[in-house]
Amino acid sequence: MSLRLVVLFLLSIACVPFAKAAGANGQWLVTTDLWGNPAYQQLDITDGDGALSGVFDGDPLVGNRNGTTLQFTVTGSDGAIYRFAGTQTQDAITGNADYPDTNNKDQRAAHAFSARRLPQRSGNAPQRHEFVPTDYSNEFSPHRAPVLTIWPGDSVHTTTLDSGGVDQHGKTRALFGNPQTGPFFVMGAKPGDVLAIRIKRLRLNRDYADSLDSLVGRAMSTAVAAKAMELGKPVRWTLDRERGVAFPQTPTPGLRTLSVPLSPMLGGLAVAPGFGSAPVSTGDTGRFGGNMDFNGIREGATVYLPVSQPGALLYLGDAHALQGDGETSQYALETSMEVEFSVDVLPNRNLSAPRVESERQLMVLGQAGSLDDALRSATSGMIQWLQQDYGLTLSECAQLIGSSVHYVVANLAGRSVGIAAKLDKSVLRTLKPADG
Amino acid sequence: MSLRLVVLFLLSIACVPFAKAAGANGQWLVTTDLWGNPAYQQLDITDGDGALSGVFDGDPLVGNRNGTTLQFTVTGSDGAIYRFAGTQTQDAITGNADYPDTNNKDQRAAHAFSARRLPQRSGNAPQRHEFVPTDYSNEFSPHRAPVLTIWPGDSVHTTTLDSGGVDQHGKTRALFGNPQTGPFFVMGAKPGDVLAIRIKRLRLNRDYADSLDSLVGRAMSTAVAAKAMELGKPVRWTLDRERGVAFPQTPTPGLRTLSVPLSPMLGGLAVAPGFGSAPVSTGDTGRFGGNMDFNGIREGATVYLPVSQPGALLYLGDAHALQGDGETSQYALETSMEVEFSVDVLPNRNLSAPRVESERQLMVLGQAGSLDDALRSATSGMIQWLQQDYGLTLSECAQLIGSSVHYVVANLAGRSVGIAAKLDKSVLRTLKPADG
Amino acid sequence: MSLRLVVLFLLSIACVPFAKAAGANGQWLVTTDLWGNPAYQQLDITDGDGALSGVFDGDPLVGNRNGTTLQFTVTGSDGAIYRFAGTQTQDAITGNADYPDTNNKDQRAAHAFSARRLPQRSGNAPQRHEFVPTDYSNEFSPHRAPVLTIWPGDSVHTTTLDSGGVDQHGKTRALFGNPQTGPFFVMGAKPGDVLAIRIKRLRLNRDYADSLDSLVGRAMSTAVAAKAMELGKPVRWTLDRERGVAFPQTPTPGLRTLSVPLSPMLGGLAVAPGFGSAPVSTGDTGRFGGNMDFNGIREGATVYLPVSQPGALLYLGDAHALQGDGETSQYALETSMEVEFSVDVLPNRNLSAPRVESERQLMVLGQAGSLDDALRSATSGMIQWLQQDYGLTLSECAQLIGSSVHYVVANLAGRSVGIAAKLDKSVLRTLKPADG
Amino acid sequence: MSLRLVVLFLLSIACVPFAKAAGANGQWLVTTDLWGNPAYQQLDITDGDGALSGVFDGDPLVGNRNGTTLQFTVTGSDGAIYRFAGTQTQDAITGNADYPDTNNKDQRAAHAFSARRLPQRSGNAPQRHEFVPTDYSNEFSPHRAPVLTIWPGDSVHTTTLDSGGVDQHGKTRALFGNPQTGPFFVMGAKPGDVLAIRIKRLRLNRDYADSLDSLVGRAMSTAVAAKAMELGKPVRWTLDRERGVAFPQTPTPGLRTLSVPLSPMLGGLAVAPGFGSAPVSTGDTGRFGGNMDFNGIREGATVYLPVSQPGALLYLGDAHALQGDGETSQYALETSMEVEFSVDVLPNRNLSAPRVESERQLMVLGQAGSLDDALRSATSGMIQWLQQDYGLTLSECAQLIGSSVHYVVANLAGRSVGIAAKLDKSVLRTLKPADG
Repeated sequence: MSLRLVVLFLLSIACVPFAKAAGANGQWLVTTDLWGNPAYQQLDITDGDGALSGVFDGDPLVGNRNGTTLQFTVTGSDGAIYRFAGTQTQDAITGNADYPDTNNKDQRAAHAFSARRLPQRSGNAPQRHEFVPTDYSNEFSPHRAPVLTIWPGDSVHTTTLDSGGVDQHGKTRALFGNPQTGPFFVMGAKPGDVLAIRIKRLRLNRDYADSLDSLVGRAMSTAVAAKAMELGKPVRWTLDRERGVAFPQTPTPGLRTLSVPLSPMLGGLAVAPGFGSAPVSTGDTGRFGGNMDFNGIREGATVYLPVSQPGALLYLGDAHALQGDGETSQYALETSMEVEFSVDVLPNRNLSAPRVESERQLMVLGQAGSLDDALRSATSGMIQWLQQDYGLTLSECAQLIGSSVHYVVANLAGRSVGIAAKLDKSVLRTLKPADG
Repeated sequence: MSLRLVVLFLLSIACVPFAKAAGANGQWLVTTDLWGNPAYQQLDITDGDGALSGVFDGDPLVGNRNGTTLQFTVTGSDGAIYRFAGTQTQDAITGNADYPDTNNKDQRAAHAFSARRLPQRSGNAPQRHEFVPTDYSNEFSPHRAPVLTIWPGDSVHTTTLDSGGVDQHGKTRALFGNPQTGPFFVMGAKPGDVLAIRIKRLRLNRDYADSLDSLVGRAMSTAVAAKAMELGKPVRWTLDRERGVAFPQTPTPGLRTLSVPLSPMLGGLAVAPGFGSAPVSTGDTGRFGGNMDFNGIREGATVYLPVSQPGALLYLGDAHALQGDGETSQYALETSMEVEFSVDVLPNRNLSAPRVESERQLMVLGQAGSLDDALRSATSGMIQWLQQDYGLTLSECAQLIGSSVHYVVANLAGRSVGIAAKLDKSVLRTLKPADG
Repeated sequence: MSLRLVVLFLLSIACVPFAKAAGANGQWLVTTDLWGNPAYQQLDITDGDGALSGVFDGDPLVGNRNGTTLQFTVTGSDGAIYRFAGTQTQDAITGNADYPDTNNKDQRAAHAFSARRLPQRSGNAPQRHEFVPTDYSNEFSPHRAPVLTIWPGDSVHTTTLDSGGVDQHGKTRALFGNPQTGPFFVMGAKPGDVLAIRIKRLRLNRDYADSLDSLVGRAMSTAVAAKAMELGKPVRWTLDRERGVAFPQTPTPGLRTLSVPLSPMLGGLAVAPGFGSAPVSTGDTGRFGGNMDFNGIREGATVYLPVSQPGALLYLGDAHALQGDGETSQYALETSMEVEFSVDVLPNRNLSAPRVESERQLMVLGQAGSLDDALRSATSGMIQWLQQDYGLTLSECAQLIGSSVHYVVANLAGRSVGIAAKLDKSVLRTLKPADG
Repeated sequence: MSLRLVVLFLLSIACVPFAKAAGANGQWLVTTDLWGNPAYQQLDITDGDGALSGVFDGDPLVGNRNGTTLQFTVTGSDGAIYRFAGTQTQDAITGNADYPDTNNKDQRAAHAFSARRLPQRSGNAPQRHEFVPTDYSNEFSPHRAPVLTIWPGDSVHTTTLDSGGVDQHGKTRALFGNPQTGPFFVMGAKPGDVLAIRIKRLRLNRDYADSLDSLVGRAMSTAVAAKAMELGKPVRWTLDRERGVAFPQTPTPGLRTLSVPLSPMLGGLAVAPGFGSAPVSTGDTGRFGGNMDFNGIREGATVYLPVSQPGALLYLGDAHALQGDGETSQYALETSMEVEFSVDVLPNRNLSAPRVESERQLMVLGQAGSLDDALRSATSGMIQWLQQDYGLTLSECAQLIGSSVHYVVANLAGRSVGIAAKLDKSVLRTLKPADG
């Protein structure tokens, strides 16, 4: 399977401007084939006329280069030895690695590897990228070639399709099921870091949204379910951008005069899942974000996601013109959207769950198979945040949460459900921050 | 067991001014002893010189009175015949009833009964009652003698103890465990009606609250639980009524400057549970309300509870100076309170769950053994409300909820947990009300 | 409220044979009125010609008696002082107690108390009591007068009504809702002990059972609920005691030849809940047992329940001719039953959940608001048992449970649901018991 | 992405013996590229000297062939028209398809497609395949090339690795995380059918298993979690195949003499998920089966899984020497295994959940994010089975389940948990089967 990935990455290299490379000097993205499963790791090489030193996935390496032939050895923090030997052709390396066997300390295993040279940026100033997507992903996958490489501080102005794959002109551009724009490769982001994504702009770019008159099973009592056979019909909503409201295009009598304020939100925002995870459906969620469908992710919010792959690989899509808590109708007011976001990388920060920060609040999104477990996850994540950024003890966290937490239901429509724990910054400001 | 109740009620009669009674004319509260279980029902008699007619628990009666000896027959809506024979002594009746057997249509069973005459009000204008409680109840019980009889439209100004039984002067006045002021007997309220309780005033009347540095089990992940042994210590909070904030009296370093806005709420509000239910602990909740611990029940809110006993029997207590969602610290900021409320009776209205109405929102409180089931209950209750008051179809409810519902976690600290479904009145106002 | 209880207990005294008492010597059951809430505690007095010593609820007392006037002082393990002064009339004492205030260490509070002398047994041999019930309880209440006082080792042969209150002759004898036989006062059982109830005999005593064609909400997906409006009809089953099978009396075509093996079980078995708990409906469950509806409680099983009141106060009822796991039809095959049980008291044993022991298995019943929480409770309870009786470490418990536990769903029909964790004795026998 | 798949399938074609093909006659597996998402469908062509007819994914086609150039049109059951034009090179076709747009009835979209000719079997007798795996899959993927094509009635004798990727000789052969043997392509199996997999033989082939002394979070109360930091250590068990028992190799004192009966089971058994699903981790479960970790899947059992892709694509792996209910230790007694299974296809049968049939019982496995939801799914699935195979009404199902169902916890260790609903065949035999 790694063959495919090499192909994809070689293709992608062609699209990206590279600085002139001297020997093996530079940053590389290494793909190792572990019994058919590609593992991605970053390799930084300093090539001193053939004497190689550097860092491979956080561990030191030494080796040498003879023309296009390289060999180097990496020593893990536990003393394990990883040996690589390969051939370089300008911006690519292919070869074989010799790894210790995870199950038997005294045995070793050979794995093919390849590497592509990562681009260097021209200048240090943050850039604003205008990105027009041409294809879309129906998986949050670590294997998909990046559509654009960006740097911390950069912003991207782009668009998203609606959940059915339809663009701002009403044309189908991708397969239904929340097709995503991306992935964006963020230089410097590595597993263990946090990617901060600031939603600078999130605006409607068409005048209708598609929804259903459904109630998800999780919102239905058996008494309601007994009468629910009539539900599930499509409902098209008019989006009146001038007045800032939405209403059904052809309402039934009871909703003839209904008018609901628009409140655009981004349903899907994710980084690629880590090694050992299969690609994830764009309908699913996890610690990496995903189809969170949380109406707190709106213009002005910053979302923090734990990075699990080199470059983070950021995906976004499935925007809603507005949505009640939980997306109880299974489809919210699904529409295409104009989006501008910027990225930053917070190094070496543990994050048990996605975080969202607005002007007014800190929020942690717990996601699990039941609301009960999701609330536990949200609370744990908020405790983690308070301990990391405010230096509070567990007792102090308990007092603060007990007096001040807000819990809202974020999502009921997916395989996992979500609960967001929120704290007002106005209360947090009365604390003396750990670093202030 | 009925003996006890007669005693209690006879005692209570002494405290209430009665209008002059002529024969058996008037409203009576009947207690029937069903194999040791008292059943309470209202009896309205018109006594035309010994010819009796009227209504017993909604069903017509006919009979006669000969001096102090009465007998009458009630015909149920299913044709079942209930015969009563008793002796009247001014404002009390005792006797025996002959009932059909619920398990065997052709058999009958004898049950002792007693009745007390219900008071008549002097004049029709709503009254404001100043009520100083002298004892408190640790059960939401249908068996407890009323502390005061009031009429729809009346208001009551009174006080509540904190959850530990301590009053505004710091004196223990009742057993810990949310002791309640009440019950108040609301004339005219009968099973199937709804009692509307408007919280006209809810004000702190002392300068401290007691809490814990706990996290309830439902809020703890196993990772947090592994470090939670240190928790559970008492924390006294200062209530600064002038500045409108609360802060720990002797804070640990991380909370040295913490200051949280006061937001008084009433944790306990209940009507008596119906026939067939045991008295309920004041720590528990149900369709009847109870220890809901929902921070949406504050000054200005109206709470709607389904009546299950004649007179509703309203209890209130366990106020909090403020509380995060869910009362995650097990004890909120527990304090005594000054309360003024008024009552109204909405006849014949089905209510699957407690409702709360604020200036801004309609709220339904779902309560169950898991958040997942509580959310189902809250949603069902909101659908019921929309169908009753706005005449919406289920499809229209689904659209309105899908676009506009808010879900918050109300309570995590009890045997049942609570989720509140909320809708903004600003959205509902764009609908044409069913009756408007 | 304590008045009522005194009345009940005085009545009950009349029914029980007492040994000749000398002064205040002997065992007493004390009822203290804590702001209207009766607290029950055992008092053992040695009266040496007016010099009193002894034990009150585990704490030492000293005092004196002058004729019928007694006064004594109890010193709690935390040094708190409790003073009692009262008047004895043969087998009863009434008076006042002076207690420290739980909220303010420097304040004290006065509480009325009364006491009744507990009976002494004639001889030491275990007795078999033939008990014919005359009334039944619809609450698991600590306040109800015992129907019989028994001693550890004794057995009782009696009967139970079906859940609708109908006896073996088809006559209604009590109110529907699982009316219980009892409570039985077990001499010597005190809070902190465990009551072991061995079901020596559990036999059908009539030829029919009543059930429903229902599915409880907890067993219904929304898809099934959509078609469930037809359900809820009564189904009478014939109990063929000779062939040992049950079948619907008037089956629909698909069940025309259905025949299910009889397997009598006891749905309700409880001790009284502890101080601070309201009486509990006989439809509810808890750590004290209750309406567990677990089909593992059958002839030959021993049930272990944690004692929370002096005398334990054992209730039993609601037997089923047979029942699938979970009692999904809301009513199992409800019938009257002939029961013989013996009791034993295991002193000072902590029990987080009800335990059941059969010839083949140890079982712990977790009960909670969701199956997820019930499973946690069952597992904790099994770990507790293994640690107490087999001296295992938590790591060893994890290995044993991981390789050998069985989990079955016990109950789905109540407010709480139940999961039983089971271990085979055949596996446990390969361990060396802690005491063996 | 479809390019990759073509490559894989072309490679796989080389490994499979084909019958001589005449023109386009035969069965084809078509891969259509829907905006980067491969869709697999079966195509059966009758080529009458260039006049093409046949069936594409259940719908009729007509067209013609001119040399190696084909074109044909498929008419969907809703009247939609699908046009294909391509070029044949012996056993492969490539070309383009013209499809209606799902979002806009009046628009159409072009999609590349390819096809590979499916093999024909030599002779009709069921075959027994000896299959030695050489690589393993860490995903239940619809995209992976089949390792073997088999026919209904065939059996396969093969081996599985342990969950860590280690074989019977102790050698690491694949990446950890339940690597699977397979997929096996079952000719004739199509979406909507059911694949019946009979476990004819399931035998240990080495003398040790690896486990942990863990408790999964779902089994831990907060009280247990507070002491669980010590857990999570590896435990190697000896598998004594002669005596049929397992015991820790280096037991701690409390388990020194522990001995648990061996009971081999297959943890992982799956068909590929359907179109629109991402590949699924071999640690996950679904309606397609997966890492069910249910100890009822053992030698002699037949497992029924709903087919979602042409050929079903059967995977198996992750066998356990034995396992308590729920796999509470996260790792059961993980070991390699010798397996023989046979397959059958039941056409057009709806299956809401995996089914298992043993000699004694019918079982349905409900899998969901909470035990509460898993039980609902298991019950629904059992009702579906009873309605399909026994012709029962919902009322009859309710009676049968209420009197006779068993519920056990199957799995607690994955993202979803499992509950199995079981009915004894001895009870079902008293019913007259629908077809009997």
